[in-house]
Formats: sequence, structure tokens, C-alpha cells
Amino acid sequence: MDPHIAPVDLAKAYRLINHGPTVLVSARAGGVDNVMAAAWACGLDFSPPKLTVVLDKMVRTRALLEASGTFAVQVPTAAQLELTRIVGTRSLADDPEKLRQAGVGLFEMPGHDLPFVSGCSAWLACRLIPEPHVQQTYDLFIGEVVGAWADTRVFRDGRWHFETARPEWRSLHHVSGGHFYAIGDALDARA
Amino acid sequence: MDPHIAPVDLAKAYRLINHGPTVLVSARAGGVDNVMAAAWACGLDFSPPKLTVVLDKMVRTRALLEASGTFAVQVPTAAQLELTRIVGTRSLADDPEKLRQAGVGLFEMPGHDLPFVSGCSAWLACRLIPEPHVQQTYDLFIGEVVGAWADTRVFRDGRWHFETARPEWRSLHHVSGGHFYAIGDALDARA
Repeated sequence: MDPHIAPVDLAKAYRLINHGPTVLVSARAGGVDNVMAAAWACGLDFSPPKLTVVLDKMVRTRALLEASGTFAVQVPTAAQLELTRIVGTRSLADDPEKLRQAGVGLFEMPGHDLPFVSGCSAWLACRLIPEPHVQQTYDLFIGEVVGAWADTRVFRDGRWHFETARPEWRSLHHVSGGHFYAIGDALDARA
Repeated sequence: MDPHIAPVDLAKAYRLINHGPTVLVSARAGGVDNVMAAAWACGLDFSPPKLTVVLDKMVRTRALLEASGTFAVQVPTAAQLELTRIVGTRSLADDPEKLRQAGVGLFEMPGHDLPFVSGCSAWLACRLIPEPHVQQTYDLFIGEVVGAWADTRVFRDGRWHFETARPEWRSLHHVSGGHFYAIGDALDARA
């Protein structure tokens, strides 16, 4: 594993997505790996950490995570802007070469049979909490975070360091149609 | 109403929160108004637009929106950093003067019996879609967006203009413990 990648205490895993980045969702089933972008991912609980993600009925990644009951959520960086756009707009069903064309590299985390995307800033391994009514009615999926890691060049000591890391580490925040904002300056409210 | 505030087409209302800002949730019932901060708010659907928000069982705003079946979600600005911290950490139950002490000003939108927070950049009026199991088990509330408005100094023509607006208009993205990031630079992926 990349020596820059370090585990994150599960009690602090929510901090990896609390600032609302667009994420990459990946899943594996039946020998197929896929990765998609999702702007609608959100924290749900602290302990055990949970999150929600919205997955349209037409996306292939949804079928994979429904089959395996597990998925990964990762935080892409400004350096991955094009990758994020491509995996968010092309479908594996139409384009079997999607991941290669998007420049997605995958790696493994010991103990988790999931495809993790190389070059992200943070990774969350999730176990699907089945809620069939919610999944069917709202396309909303609930995951319990069972593993968390971050690249120590931008997240360490339980917090993000965007303000001192290189700009290409900034998280991406999609508005619409390929128009994103990077995360910006740190602002600390008085205690 | 403030002449800078203009309606946003409901088809584009998702764009007001798609970049993952920390929001203010407000509700009114029985003559009581309250406002709280929530980092866990997220888009859920485009048409009709829906969103989710996580509200702990101990927060007063939750009881108000459960009673009225309506709530408002608004996007606070960097200028409202202290206000956002205060309404996110103090409870109306403990501190009846919470809103005054936080410097919250409220205003009305015609046709909506809800307390809207002055000085925000965007406002969404929501109708609660009751899902008792989801609310009780996960503290997760689903709203249909029935009205949307934005301050045209930072959102107009269906998009955010953070890159040209004054810095105090930037949205806030909470990590933990009063540590926020402002939204940053625009990044456009190739079409």
C-alpha cells in the first residue's frame, strides 16, 4: 500500500466527508468493478459512523453494491477533476473501457474485497445497511463505515490540511454540468 | 422583501446545495421559531426537488418541523460564521435568547409560514415527506422543495458566482468543532 495512506480512527471518519465533497463510489461483484461520481453523499451518524449516498436506478455501480452488500466511498482531488467528470457521466454498460479511459487506477486494502481508487485523498469502506423501501422509493442507500483511510499529505491528526497542502489536493464540489468548486480557505469560528 | 432576493426555478433548486455547504434549518410551530446549523444536508432528487437532513432527537427544531410538516433550509455565508457556530451549538431549550444572541434576523416569504434567516445566500422552503421509520431509526428527514430563492449578488442565471462575488458570500463547509472551510475556486471539467 502507498506509504502515504494511513488509517483514520472510525470515530473521526465523518470528518472525511463532513465538508460536503463530491465523492467517488465504487463497488465489486461477480468479477466486475465499477466507479461512479456522486455529489449526493452525506454523513448520517457518528458512532458507528454511517453515511448516505443517492444512486440512480440506471447506474451499474448500484447493481454491484446491491449484489455484494459493500461499497467504497472516496474523496477525489482537484488533480482528478477530469477523472471525476468522466466516471460521473459515462456508463460501464455503454462503455466497457470506461475506467481505463477515465484513467482510474484501482488498489486493494487488506481485509476489504473492494476496488479503491488510487490518487484520492480519503477512502471509506462501507457495509450496506439494507433498507429496501428507502432504496426503491428514493434511490437512497445507507452504509456503515467499517474502515477509513486518508492520504497523510492532506489529512492527518484527525483533520484536513487543505490550507497547507498543494492546491491539487483540494476536494471537488460539483454544482452542475461539469462546473465544480474546489474547497477554499480555512475559517475558524470562536470557541 | 429584500430586492436582491429572487426566486430560483425549482428545476435548478438542487444547485443551491449541490456543492455540500453546511446549512441552517429553521422551523415554526405553536408560535415558536428556531434555527439550527446542519452539516448533514444533501440533495436527494431533481424533479420534484427533494433533499435530506439529519436532525438529532434532542434538537428543538426537529420537534417544530415534526409538528408543522414544513421547514426551511438556507445557505449561510462566510459573514455568518459566528451565527452559524452559535445556532449549531446552543439549544433553544437551554437558552431562550439563542436567536437574539446569535444575531439571527428572520423574515417572511409570501405564501410560506416559515422563519427565513436574513443574510443567507439561498433559501429552500420544504414540505416534510413523512417516513416515520427513517426518522426514528436514522434521524433522517426527507423534504420536498416547494420554493427556492437566492441572493442575486452571488447566485443568478441558475448558477453560483462565488468567484466574482465578495469573499464574505462564500458558503461554509464544517469539518468539526467550529473548524470550517469556505468554498474556493471554480474548476470546470472539459465538456
